[in-house]
Amino acid sequence: MFIPKKYKKIFITGGAGFIGSHITDALVEEKKEVIVFDNLSSGKKSFLKKLLNNDNLKLIQGDLLNIKDLEKALPKDTDLIIHLAANPDISKGIKDPSLDFNQTIVATFNLLNEMREKNIKNLIYFSGSGVYGDVGNTFTAENYGPLFPVSMYGASKLGAEALISAFSNLFDMKVWIFRPANIIGDRATHGVILDFINRLKKDSSELTILGNGEQSKSYLYIYDVLNAVSLAIKKGKGKINTFNIASESFITVNEIAKYVIQIMKLKNVKIMHTKGNIGWPGDVPIVRIDNSKIKDIGWKEKFDSTTATKKTINDLIR
Amino acid sequence: MFIPKKYKKIFITGGAGFIGSHITDALVEEKKEVIVFDNLSSGKKSFLKKLLNNDNLKLIQGDLLNIKDLEKALPKDTDLIIHLAANPDISKGIKDPSLDFNQTIVATFNLLNEMREKNIKNLIYFSGSGVYGDVGNTFTAENYGPLFPVSMYGASKLGAEALISAFSNLFDMKVWIFRPANIIGDRATHGVILDFINRLKKDSSELTILGNGEQSKSYLYIYDVLNAVSLAIKKGKGKINTFNIASESFITVNEIAKYVIQIMKLKNVKIMHTKGNIGWPGDVPIVRIDNSKIKDIGWKEKFDSTTATKKTINDLIR
Repeated sequence: MFIPKKYKKIFITGGAGFIGSHITDALVEEKKEVIVFDNLSSGKKSFLKKLLNNDNLKLIQGDLLNIKDLEKALPKDTDLIIHLAANPDISKGIKDPSLDFNQTIVATFNLLNEMREKNIKNLIYFSGSGVYGDVGNTFTAENYGPLFPVSMYGASKLGAEALISAFSNLFDMKVWIFRPANIIGDRATHGVILDFINRLKKDSSELTILGNGEQSKSYLYIYDVLNAVSLAIKKGKGKINTFNIASESFITVNEIAKYVIQIMKLKNVKIMHTKGNIGWPGDVPIVRIDNSKIKDIGWKEKFDSTTATKKTINDLIR
Repeated sequence: MFIPKKYKKIFITGGAGFIGSHITDALVEEKKEVIVFDNLSSGKKSFLKKLLNNDNLKLIQGDLLNIKDLEKALPKDTDLIIHLAANPDISKGIKDPSLDFNQTIVATFNLLNEMREKNIKNLIYFSGSGVYGDVGNTFTAENYGPLFPVSMYGASKLGAEALISAFSNLFDMKVWIFRPANIIGDRATHGVILDFINRLKKDSSELTILGNGEQSKSYLYIYDVLNAVSLAIKKGKGKINTFNIASESFITVNEIAKYVIQIMKLKNVKIMHTKGNIGWPGDVPIVRIDNSKIKDIGWKEKFDSTTATKKTINDLIR
């Protein structure tokens, strides 16, 4: 069982996106009544293709920034909201800080306010390890402080978490907040792996890596994320349940490039690097996430960062 | 010297409010060029009365939620922004969560964005100990975690801090973030002391205390706050400088009531309590703030919580 039986009617924002569509798959499989609410800015109808003839699944194209859309779409008797909608492109935050601000903070506030008005009590939120900021080799646990995010992405996730915390207390909501590492796998719409593949498809003679390529982070295969969510919702008994989701293994960007080239069977690709140790302003070069809390309730990743990367390359070059 | 010489042109949001007007006083006294930007929703022109004929002080009535107001008012060559504008009434957050959300989070985002566009590099922000949430007798230091605010006020302050942190990194801003205890003193526009005085002026036969009155918090006299700000801006050399400002002494609401009645020279006031241990949803009943960091740079409060309370009662009953 992915999600306990008592949560029958589920509303999932960003449910047509990369992570969202995998969760939607799992929900529909166990016959939940699912409403996917997505503005289809990066989510795709095709990700839900197999499911669109299923009576238990409804896709509503709407935007959390348009309160009328949300009011109309969200049923009063919703048992659980899974909130994934956000700006998925972290590097864009420096060009236009309002992107993350609106699509993450304002959107989350609108959703919480609508939950309050309709007396909806359960929320799963996908935050991110970006809330921890740039703390080098420190393995950050859920109670790590101080929190100084370095990107608009991280700041907006922390802002959204703060709002969720206050709403949980003031309006008696039960919430699960996940801070995942880089989630990768089939249907990924962004990220370094897809970027490398796309650029090498265009020109297989060279590949420019943003930064020195020594950025070292934890990557997690989508399959392992779903397991973590399922466990946490069953075992997280508090009112606010925060969980890091990450493998403690990591991989560098240079290694990712090597595997992409290998699996794409390319030869003589000239590798170049841009200056500095980060890919873009706001990039966190070293990400180490303490996963003890989710491990303590019985989770273990099936795929380490390297295996997850190779699987994803295979998924995406198809 | 309150603020170092290199900061000549200073823009202060909420500069006509309780805390803001005291800071404005000190700035004008040392001949800074000061622009007070205030929507006068709780700030008052009369707080700046003595100063309005001073050429170095300009009061602009405007709102951070109106970007055109801000664009027009904020000069490109501003050396330092002191950002105090916010919803000052914490208890209102449960009736209308959008109050704190707009007046604290959205307002701060608008200000940061305008700083970015005008390349303004220095910011003092008044956050609050509300970011720590309700953690009982724990003395919270600046690196305390996890941060689960319980009020819209605390959540919005944390959200604003997160945005400031990201902007500081992405756009190279130097920032000082203060997390003060309850600041009290002359010109206070809100808070338990003023509330008791006003209610007893209306009806001196009885006083209803919200909650059991055993709420126990740290109160700081405005004079001590200015000293802390002055020290921190001189000695905080990092890019992000976060400081708690609080006395380690505390006082209960019942004691405050006792002193108000004493100093107002009232007799036979019937004291009543409402149910529960908090004054309103989102109230934090026990507030303990670790002030080691600001003490380490040489600050010490002149007035403990009880003395500050008595002084404030005298200020406000006049």
